[in-house]
Amino acid sequence: MSVALPRIDAIRDAAARIAPHAVVTPVMRNARLDALAGAQLFFKCENLQRGGAFKFRGACNAVWSLSDDEAARGVVTHSSGNHGNALAIAASTRGIPAHVVVPEGAVKAKLEAIEQAGAVLHRCAPNTPAREAAAAEVQRQTGADLVHPYADTRVMAGQGTLVLELLNQAGDLDIIVTPVGGGGLAAGCAIAAHALDSSIQMIAAEPEGADDAAQSLAQGSRIAGITANTICDGLRTLIGESNFEALQQHGTQVVTVSDDEVVAAMKTLWRELKLVIEPSSATVFAAVLKRPEQFAGKRVGLVLTGGNVDLEALPF
Amino acid sequence: MSVALPRIDAIRDAAARIAPHAVVTPVMRNARLDALAGAQLFFKCENLQRGGAFKFRGACNAVWSLSDDEAARGVVTHSSGNHGNALAIAASTRGIPAHVVVPEGAVKAKLEAIEQAGAVLHRCAPNTPAREAAAAEVQRQTGADLVHPYADTRVMAGQGTLVLELLNQAGDLDIIVTPVGGGGLAAGCAIAAHALDSSIQMIAAEPEGADDAAQSLAQGSRIAGITANTICDGLRTLIGESNFEALQQHGTQVVTVSDDEVVAAMKTLWRELKLVIEPSSATVFAAVLKRPEQFAGKRVGLVLTGGNVDLEALPF
Repeated sequence: MSVALPRIDAIRDAAARIAPHAVVTPVMRNARLDALAGAQLFFKCENLQRGGAFKFRGACNAVWSLSDDEAARGVVTHSSGNHGNALAIAASTRGIPAHVVVPEGAVKAKLEAIEQAGAVLHRCAPNTPAREAAAAEVQRQTGADLVHPYADTRVMAGQGTLVLELLNQAGDLDIIVTPVGGGGLAAGCAIAAHALDSSIQMIAAEPEGADDAAQSLAQGSRIAGITANTICDGLRTLIGESNFEALQQHGTQVVTVSDDEVVAAMKTLWRELKLVIEPSSATVFAAVLKRPEQFAGKRVGLVLTGGNVDLEALPF
Repeated sequence: MSVALPRIDAIRDAAARIAPHAVVTPVMRNARLDALAGAQLFFKCENLQRGGAFKFRGACNAVWSLSDDEAARGVVTHSSGNHGNALAIAASTRGIPAHVVVPEGAVKAKLEAIEQAGAVLHRCAPNTPAREAAAAEVQRQTGADLVHPYADTRVMAGQGTLVLELLNQAGDLDIIVTPVGGGGLAAGCAIAAHALDSSIQMIAAEPEGADDAAQSLAQGSRIAGITANTICDGLRTLIGESNFEALQQHGTQVVTVSDDEVVAAMKTLWRELKLVIEPSSATVFAAVLKRPEQFAGKRVGLVLTGGNVDLEALPF
């Protein structure tokens, strides 16, 4: 499914649209982490966003982009967790129904949060065709608007708003590192960053066990599928078509990291920043530690994407 | 050991003295936690303070109160962790030696942090007489200034600075809840709060397994000793004499909470706030949940005192 990439105007519109509802998340610095990395690190704390993840930005932009008639029929999505939770909360800000199709095996803490936010859960098998079919069935029955987790112009624009904030808070940056899964964040952030400063190097951190973006960039075309095997539950999806094109257009480099590197980075971030972040968020710091020569002396923005973890099932 | 309580002028001086070195920690709000408590909660995030705990405030004030000659001989303390770490970091901001006497059994993460900050560790048995004797021996050998964890006017003044910030950030509050161990925080905060607004109710949260402050207030005089048995490793000390007098003078109420209540509160705070906080910090929210009628509808400041935990030894 190919969708239009948002332009910077759409990202600025999204920023205004979500402002009444979203948190301007803080940017944290840490002297010990700077010393470890040999760089100046600016951590954009989207784990402190509503719903505990950056996903609220895109979902909120989509919900508030609807006409009143469209909104009244509700919204639907399929999501392993954070996007579903975000859409449920975003729908609640407008008082409209939300339906979330969740694959079996999703993180329990995330499912509970989605239900708490008032959405209707629909279970399905843990693969992309099953998710899309279940969402289509809900659409057919309710007329709800599909808000895709990443292959959606409104969602990409919403995610890009965090870079507008980050550059405003941190000043000029040489590099911005985001995780990459479906690529809504990586695409939105690249578009926003380069509209403001075309010299910023965009880097996408990807788990080795779901390295379709890295493989796709290496072969110059999007690979058809992966069997994801990684602790990073938010990054197991195949990158979207348009999202992949955005990575190519913006010269985004992918750095792959092992699950062991992710867990080590996660522990270091918890210990030093005192923040609860989920494994997907730790990929960005793991990437910096893996390529010290690339980051040495640079001003680096790192997007900590979310903090929704099962506290009873921590990987350490 | 009785020491003078600080006046508000000393707390204001401390705020100016530590400003170049300390973090103005954020105050966080959370709609779900407000709903759980039936109150408006303002979380003062001292886990995001330098060294991961409020203790840096008092230690920093003490270090920068010394004359150059005094400072050159260094500082010494005895501490189960956070104060020792804080003093080590504070000493490093002035480039002077720090000696920390640590009892056997202290949290490993805290000891590592103290060494990382450049202090010299001195081990001793885990009881107050052994700690004081070891610190006195270091003083004798080095001429270092003793910066007691709580029975120290400069330390109490430094801890009180967080209330100046909190009231500036949150506006008027009806109640402020701090944990109580040695009582430097509870005393300093009460003095600062009542200098600004005498109507604020001060509440001290204390673990049932180290409830000497509660017992002392109940009988009207300070009890002679306790055998502490609580997960709250920062709150196992007996309250200081002057600190206890401050609690009496300021009408501080003590609310005791069980370790089970602390662990449940800790999990809830981690999940909702996405902050790593240590068990001692969770006592304040546990106290609010335990006495809902007392907090209903109030504007309540809660001091999250620190975030230094062994990630390999979490209580859940």
